[in-house]
Amino acid sequence: MGSMSAVPSTDVFEAIRQRQSIRTFQGREIEPEKLQMLLAAIDQAPSAGNLQAYQVWLVRDHTVKQLLVRAALEQEFIAQAPMVLVFSTAPARAAKYGARGETLYTLQDATVGAAYAQLAATALGLGSCWVGAFNEDMVSKALHLPPDQKPVAMLPVGYPAENTRRTSRRPLEELVQEFPPEPKPTP
Amino acid sequence: MGSMSAVPSTDVFEAIRQRQSIRTFQGREIEPEKLQMLLAAIDQAPSAGNLQAYQVWLVRDHTVKQLLVRAALEQEFIAQAPMVLVFSTAPARAAKYGARGETLYTLQDATVGAAYAQLAATALGLGSCWVGAFNEDMVSKALHLPPDQKPVAMLPVGYPAENTRRTSRRPLEELVQEFPPEPKPTP
Repeated sequence: MGSMSAVPSTDVFEAIRQRQSIRTFQGREIEPEKLQMLLAAIDQAPSAGNLQAYQVWLVRDHTVKQLLVRAALEQEFIAQAPMVLVFSTAPARAAKYGARGETLYTLQDATVGAAYAQLAATALGLGSCWVGAFNEDMVSKALHLPPDQKPVAMLPVGYPAENTRRTSRRPLEELVQEFPPEPKPTP
Repeated sequence: MGSMSAVPSTDVFEAIRQRQSIRTFQGREIEPEKLQMLLAAIDQAPSAGNLQAYQVWLVRDHTVKQLLVRAALEQEFIAQAPMVLVFSTAPARAAKYGARGETLYTLQDATVGAAYAQLAATALGLGSCWVGAFNEDMVSKALHLPPDQKPVAMLPVGYPAENTRRTSRRPLEELVQEFPPEPKPTP
């Protein structure tokens, strides 16, 4: 556990607050120990029936990163990161749940994996940015994905070269609604 | 911040390890301060274009919880929890992204919100279980959802009345694959 001692403990709520989209990265590589912790955290994410019906593609190759940039509306920062994680569905793994498994669960499994990756990255002092706007066919081609897999999220990950700025959010009372509504206290 | 001092700090990786499906709950209510922290954590979750194109429905009413049980293949433990959070899409909020927003992003936003809820709940000493197997129409009806919203996940949340057991996972080298593959070291 020696290598882990270099990673200071980060409280869950603190990581949730600190996680902001990072689009500028240092050239610095990600240490193998940190990469291992990040990937192991993804592997702990919950999935429907614990089937983990998704796949994580790790891209460090410069040429392939450029293909991902091209697939994602030329968002150049993707290639600036030392590593890009691409999350794809793996519908065959959820086939026992029928159409719901092959369309909904596999997509949710991959999405939750990416969510865990972002929080783990934050705790490791790394930054990431969720990239959702891309041409799926171009990404599939760049990664030689099996025909049944569909890429659903990309995360460039690296040491941030920008300060995080807290972005605003919907007011809680708008995002969350009780049903049935709580009776208003009588004035 | 007085009330927060009652919540011990939980490391991100620790919470990720501790989060396991909980299907047995104590009768104990969730304290308002903890509920507030949980909901605020959800509100910090990332979303496409920061549009937060989803809605969280908070259900504490016994009758409505029973309707959710019925909608979810009679999984009785749902009604045993003091609270159920239902995450639904809100496609109109992502309309500026066209079909991709209204089908993919809204579903991912709701899914990431639920993922954050589970980790925050774990950090607060609460347990939850991701429920994905349910009849969407029955849930929509039970919650009087607006016609464009689709429920995509339910989380019963409460104090656990069972010990968590670590479940197994896919080997990392199977879940995560580098592309292009790293050349094997020559023997």
